[in-house]
Amino acid sequence: MSLIDIILSKYKVDIGDYVKIRLSDGSIIKGLIMPKHIYSKEDILVIKLDNGYNIGIKVSRIEDIKKDVPPTYEGLHIEFERRYIQGLPRVLLLGVGGTILSRVDYRTGGVKSAVSAEEIIEILPEIQDIAEIHTRVIMNKYSEHLTPSDWSKIANEVYRGIREGYDGVIVLHGTDTLGYTAAALSFAIQKSPIPIILVGSQRSSDRPSSDAALNLISAVYIAGHAPFAGVYVVMHASSSDNKIAVHLGTRVRKNHTSRRDAFQSIDILPVAYVDENLNIKINYTDGIYKRDKNRSPDFHPKFSRNAALIKFYPGMHPEILKSILGLNIKALVIEGTGLGHLGEHLFEVLETLIREGVHVFVTSQCIWGRVNLNVYDTGRILLKIGLIPLGNMLSETAYVKASWILGNFGEDELPTLMPTNIAGEITSRSPVKDLRCI
Amino acid sequence: MSLIDIILSKYKVDIGDYVKIRLSDGSIIKGLIMPKHIYSKEDILVIKLDNGYNIGIKVSRIEDIKKDVPPTYEGLHIEFERRYIQGLPRVLLLGVGGTILSRVDYRTGGVKSAVSAEEIIEILPEIQDIAEIHTRVIMNKYSEHLTPSDWSKIANEVYRGIREGYDGVIVLHGTDTLGYTAAALSFAIQKSPIPIILVGSQRSSDRPSSDAALNLISAVYIAGHAPFAGVYVVMHASSSDNKIAVHLGTRVRKNHTSRRDAFQSIDILPVAYVDENLNIKINYTDGIYKRDKNRSPDFHPKFSRNAALIKFYPGMHPEILKSILGLNIKALVIEGTGLGHLGEHLFEVLETLIREGVHVFVTSQCIWGRVNLNVYDTGRILLKIGLIPLGNMLSETAYVKASWILGNFGEDELPTLMPTNIAGEITSRSPVKDLRCI
Repeated sequence: MSLIDIILSKYKVDIGDYVKIRLSDGSIIKGLIMPKHIYSKEDILVIKLDNGYNIGIKVSRIEDIKKDVPPTYEGLHIEFERRYIQGLPRVLLLGVGGTILSRVDYRTGGVKSAVSAEEIIEILPEIQDIAEIHTRVIMNKYSEHLTPSDWSKIANEVYRGIREGYDGVIVLHGTDTLGYTAAALSFAIQKSPIPIILVGSQRSSDRPSSDAALNLISAVYIAGHAPFAGVYVVMHASSSDNKIAVHLGTRVRKNHTSRRDAFQSIDILPVAYVDENLNIKINYTDGIYKRDKNRSPDFHPKFSRNAALIKFYPGMHPEILKSILGLNIKALVIEGTGLGHLGEHLFEVLETLIREGVHVFVTSQCIWGRVNLNVYDTGRILLKIGLIPLGNMLSETAYVKASWILGNFGEDELPTLMPTNIAGEITSRSPVKDLRCI
Repeated sequence: MSLIDIILSKYKVDIGDYVKIRLSDGSIIKGLIMPKHIYSKEDILVIKLDNGYNIGIKVSRIEDIKKDVPPTYEGLHIEFERRYIQGLPRVLLLGVGGTILSRVDYRTGGVKSAVSAEEIIEILPEIQDIAEIHTRVIMNKYSEHLTPSDWSKIANEVYRGIREGYDGVIVLHGTDTLGYTAAALSFAIQKSPIPIILVGSQRSSDRPSSDAALNLISAVYIAGHAPFAGVYVVMHASSSDNKIAVHLGTRVRKNHTSRRDAFQSIDILPVAYVDENLNIKINYTDGIYKRDKNRSPDFHPKFSRNAALIKFYPGMHPEILKSILGLNIKALVIEGTGLGHLGEHLFEVLETLIREGVHVFVTSQCIWGRVNLNVYDTGRILLKIGLIPLGNMLSETAYVKASWILGNFGEDELPTLMPTNIAGEITSRSPVKDLRCI
């Protein structure tokens, strides 16, 4: 039993109760008892005040806790008025789900998907000073539950926003598979006339240390005002609230389970940074289209279920690879080791897969760097068997790309299109050196 | 056709030929024509001189190339004498394979596993001034071909070296699965009285930019002279030749396909750094045993084939998970997204697996950070189904650990031992902040 549990049971109150607390200095605090979370200290009770802010109270300072009557609904909310300022760029917020659209569930202590895209404006009314905000809810799903057909749905809604003349479209999305969806939109909508920004948050917007505010404000600014177009992920670039990164949609990965700066561009710098005063610093413009509402995008929104992604490990069971036969899978991406190698005990099953019409592609579980099957004799055997190496394409992007090629162009296009750069997924330049740390 | 190909065909010579080259300044160079490799420039012909060194010659400086008679075998080699200096610590080199034991195949331009552990001393005789070197060849395999039974074999040979009284044991190993084998040895030989060092190289020792020399020299120094014991990976800590990292065996990962500093400690700093003057800087000592030849190690060298590792992806086919039924797999490690989440369309098959007696564990494909299934309602469902989260254990280490538990203690020990720290595979401390870069 934790210290907080003991104090709650002593005063017969519970998480989610509205209470009146008397402290040792005589002062009175009223508010909602918040659940303990992974970052909270043992001896701190967190209370949500009527003004929406959370405060922490040291348990030793508490003299008494009593249940109290909460103020009326209105009193619990910050005053909110929907406003449209003339002359601002028009930005469409599309709600998909995830932590950025979540609140703490005071009963369970966990986080629930609950906030609509419209409510996000209520929480962050200042985004209305950056752009004229319109909202639309597509679905409300945690991102780990999304499937290729959801990518099609999101792509169609983004495209609808482009045709409706918006200056930027923002997708509010869970961070877990944000990288996969960013790759999907990068392939589905090429040469976009406007910025398409995917944004999420690592901590829900009602938490004291939430990254939602700065991420969303920056996303709205990039969507409405950036000089460049295309598909990007906009998230914290450091653990402090002063730098946001704009990552290319095909080269971004969630590399930390909980940090605010979990997302990293792989083998390249982010396309741009945004500081807390909303100054944009562009790192490079190669391959980046300018914002131009007269340009028509190439639109191919379908994604097939006939692609798969499998990670190799030493002693891997060949039967796992073989299991994809009978599932109508046409494209298999294997995450090899190092330069793209695979154990020799798999060579036979790989030959079988290829003979049965599966196109097999190789990426690396190293994450950074490019595969090369020409350096070692063992790699050249894989080439002879018929495996196709994918340069420095991320495994996740490769899986999405295979699903996209199958959805729109058919399996015959796989061998040509997969190893060809379409949306920045293979970079020919040397990796940017200062990106990785040691 | 490349510039080099043109010049070679002009003078009717080929890669691997021993030639005499006349330059525009009248000077004469004799040596073996080396193959172009991925790092060589378009207009540079690389020649291996009789003294073993490679030099690059600008094509525009070449006046003439003629085939010549190579010197006798002895002349091609640096003078080499096996020497044992009294009073030095005794270090055993165990040859497993990989690039560090490889040479360029001059005919194909690729790299072949070819050098024995004894020949390594011939290439790097100076390691004999650091320790009294003994060598033993266990096998000669690229590391992607290793299986759990190879880990057992390596563990047995290392243990034999400990019992024979060596002051340190070095395993010369391919880099592709070096992290997996390091984890395997960390579990198989606990409380080791001496340092057990795994070392590899990203470029073969006869290449101009090879990292083999500094890696091996540092490995020998740590094995023979470091004050600490245990299982470590010793590799470049930066892309220049002035810093080597000593990584804990259970928390190290190959994060780049080709860079010399490809290996990184995850969520912690390397245990120590070594500079080019062989000064050791120890970063922490928590959980690290001192070198003490009187200590008997805990030795459990078996590894089972009844564990598997599968990476989740959005829209993953449940049939791939189901394929492990019938393979007698008792432990499945799934790489979830973010805090360890999995798509809801897999819940049913996960229930089936657990009902059929498979123990299912969750790690994160984020690599950095720890899983936590208590934050979101979707995570709590996974807990209810019976999945066991593994903190910040690396997926690769988790797979190795499951194979080790099954090999030595049986499946009933999986639920208790898997989420319990044994060899540094789960750290409770906050991640070291300066390790990741943004």
